[in-house]
Amino acid sequence: MRRAIINAVVLTMNDRMDCLEKGYVRIRDGAITEVASMEGWVPDGEEECTDAAGMWILPGFVNTHTHTPMTLLRGYADDLPLHTWLTEHIFPAEARVMTPEHVRLAARLAFAEMIRTGTTCFNDMYFFSQLIAEEAKKAGLRAVLNDSLIDFPTPAFRTVDEGLALAEELIQAWAGDPLIHPSVCAHSPYTCSKETLLKAKRLADRYGTLLQIHLSETRQEVETVKKQTGLSPGEYLHRIGLLDSRLIAAHGVWLTPAEVQLFADNGAAIGHCPKSNLKLASGIADTASWLEAGVTVGLGTDGTASNNTLDMVEEMRFAALLPKGARYNPVAVSAGNALRMATIEGARALGLGDRTGSLEPGKRADLLLVRSETVNMQPVYDHYSAIVYAMNSGNIIASMAEGEWLMRNRKPVRVDEEEALQEVMERFGVKAGI
Amino acid sequence: MRRAIINAVVLTMNDRMDCLEKGYVRIRDGAITEVASMEGWVPDGEEECTDAAGMWILPGFVNTHTHTPMTLLRGYADDLPLHTWLTEHIFPAEARVMTPEHVRLAARLAFAEMIRTGTTCFNDMYFFSQLIAEEAKKAGLRAVLNDSLIDFPTPAFRTVDEGLALAEELIQAWAGDPLIHPSVCAHSPYTCSKETLLKAKRLADRYGTLLQIHLSETRQEVETVKKQTGLSPGEYLHRIGLLDSRLIAAHGVWLTPAEVQLFADNGAAIGHCPKSNLKLASGIADTASWLEAGVTVGLGTDGTASNNTLDMVEEMRFAALLPKGARYNPVAVSAGNALRMATIEGARALGLGDRTGSLEPGKRADLLLVRSETVNMQPVYDHYSAIVYAMNSGNIIASMAEGEWLMRNRKPVRVDEEEALQEVMERFGVKAGI
Repeated sequence: MRRAIINAVVLTMNDRMDCLEKGYVRIRDGAITEVASMEGWVPDGEEECTDAAGMWILPGFVNTHTHTPMTLLRGYADDLPLHTWLTEHIFPAEARVMTPEHVRLAARLAFAEMIRTGTTCFNDMYFFSQLIAEEAKKAGLRAVLNDSLIDFPTPAFRTVDEGLALAEELIQAWAGDPLIHPSVCAHSPYTCSKETLLKAKRLADRYGTLLQIHLSETRQEVETVKKQTGLSPGEYLHRIGLLDSRLIAAHGVWLTPAEVQLFADNGAAIGHCPKSNLKLASGIADTASWLEAGVTVGLGTDGTASNNTLDMVEEMRFAALLPKGARYNPVAVSAGNALRMATIEGARALGLGDRTGSLEPGKRADLLLVRSETVNMQPVYDHYSAIVYAMNSGNIIASMAEGEWLMRNRKPVRVDEEEALQEVMERFGVKAGI
Repeated sequence: MRRAIINAVVLTMNDRMDCLEKGYVRIRDGAITEVASMEGWVPDGEEECTDAAGMWILPGFVNTHTHTPMTLLRGYADDLPLHTWLTEHIFPAEARVMTPEHVRLAARLAFAEMIRTGTTCFNDMYFFSQLIAEEAKKAGLRAVLNDSLIDFPTPAFRTVDEGLALAEELIQAWAGDPLIHPSVCAHSPYTCSKETLLKAKRLADRYGTLLQIHLSETRQEVETVKKQTGLSPGEYLHRIGLLDSRLIAAHGVWLTPAEVQLFADNGAAIGHCPKSNLKLASGIADTASWLEAGVTVGLGTDGTASNNTLDMVEEMRFAALLPKGARYNPVAVSAGNALRMATIEGARALGLGDRTGSLEPGKRADLLLVRSETVNMQPVYDHYSAIVYAMNSGNIIASMAEGEWLMRNRKPVRVDEEEALQEVMERFGVKAGI
């Protein structure tokens, strides 16, 4: 299939931050073949041509940390202290609700929301990942997936070794798939023994996959890990050999400058989740210092029980605004840097920097069309400022992954959102009596 | 004109936080006459009846602090240190740009954005308020307006006494108007002498209007005021007699507990602007302590040069999330409290608590219809949580003020947004070469 999108402002998000004020992107068989100014445009009678005048073309957003099936628990038991929320509400509800059938339904709802808010690639952490992979494939989304290894029984497996077997099956089942990228996950250093962490690492190494973990999310976690290991969470991971360029740690709120340096030195990435960190009262990460140290930092929404949206536009806004106010520094994280975190840096954090996250020939065509000519955006003095501080997800009118449309004219094309919505409303929420 | 909106979840935001799971709101000549359950519904063949099944009816949002004409400077010179931003960019641009004609245009653009994002009432601080009043009246928005007194020449007046004369003219011109509420404004305790502050106060007292001021926005301001007066800004206002139930202070980021108590004891209100406070690196206000002390707290977007939107849904989200993460307290400001700040408490802060901010018989009909059956909202376990943590402005499909429609089916009905947008795009922004 050959496609072209023309007459748009093209924000490439390449290393030079090249921006074409009136340009086009050409696509063939899912790959970007050309990104150039309209001055050199020569029509090709056989390609599908989309006129995007009045719009930006951006790389699709990369959500580096989420738990998609938690859409079913969006807003379930909000505004409670963390321990009460988790142990008395979320864990029991998950045990009750998360059947394979419901995980599929929850994923479809999540994908409709993600597509409407500009995500083309996400990194999930949950259970029943094979089912989520099948649904993501149908939806056309790029997905990094894994079953979360943890030292107690889950809805999907009873022991770590069962979980490891599932993880290996997933890796083998999707080997070579263009959209589904299986990986390995260990839940956290306080819910996984050293043995579990090392088993996860060995599996990830054997197949060359990403390894995902929650790290340094709360002060309590840091104290727990220090008590158990004598080290802070980042030092501990480094000591046992997990900190390398195929590791992504979600959160990192309480990383010390020494740990941040370890991340930078070893090429390990952080999935920054500013809204979830606020909502769960975990704290405000010092992301400006991470960027300064040279750490690869992507953005994540976390699950909808602690956000409560999957909207990367919001996440980008919080990522740009929070460090300014929290550290009294108006230049802490610029609009351009926030957009990099939401796109190319997120892709790099997931080990997909060669495939997605920027608009460059040779990369896969994962992109958004964003309308600039609306009352919430104008006037536009600077593209990055407009996108990071003023746009909302309603400005995203179309998107594609692997060169195939995910949304056109604000309507998801591969997910039946009405069906998912009706089913969720019948089964969950106050109407269903839950 | 008689209207009714039926079959909706009605969140009254009255003092008991009454919620009707299936209710209606009846309106006659701009006033709410009935708010009741559908069980008691008796059709009236002569009223315009709107079926709002699958929606919430909420009071319209009250934006307690903004500078509407600054839409023309949305995103102008972002990501710079405050002093450079203000003195080298914003002030010179305002002097160049803010002609009467442009103020009208900017106001129309602002009103289109406000209406699309659920604001039905706003408190402005700018110049040429007579023009803004005329445009607000045409748009159908409820507006608290004033010319901002300041001890140096402005685009609209050269001396404080000229400014006072304009303020008095405005008050007299709009006396008794149902939508336009003139008030008095002194810019701040560091840009107005004590004499100017007292002149403003006397004028406000003479006509019984609100008095608006910027207060305790930055640490630098606190130091300046302390050096000049020996008192912190709140103590200073109290000492000279400004702190009473007709005062609204914007920001208040650096108010001490003693000053907060002065606000509570004297019934003075705060217009909390969380996004602007982040973007300009002013800090994060301790709003939970304000609410605990019993201060009336509304929300404000501030101008679009420091936000960069006029979207009260976003402001509400930041107001609910920030205090949790910044103070490590997941129950700091609940969803219900955030929605109160955006509605009834904002109305009270503007001295309009008897007219707007809640859905109760006798109040004016300022309200929103918000669609709940969308992929970003479902499932809904709690109405307040869904609205504060999950909705976006795209969920607002209709609104009215004084019982007249401002927006229907996501289309503003009284502001020609296309015309305003085209004119702004031609004259401002990167396309216009500014």
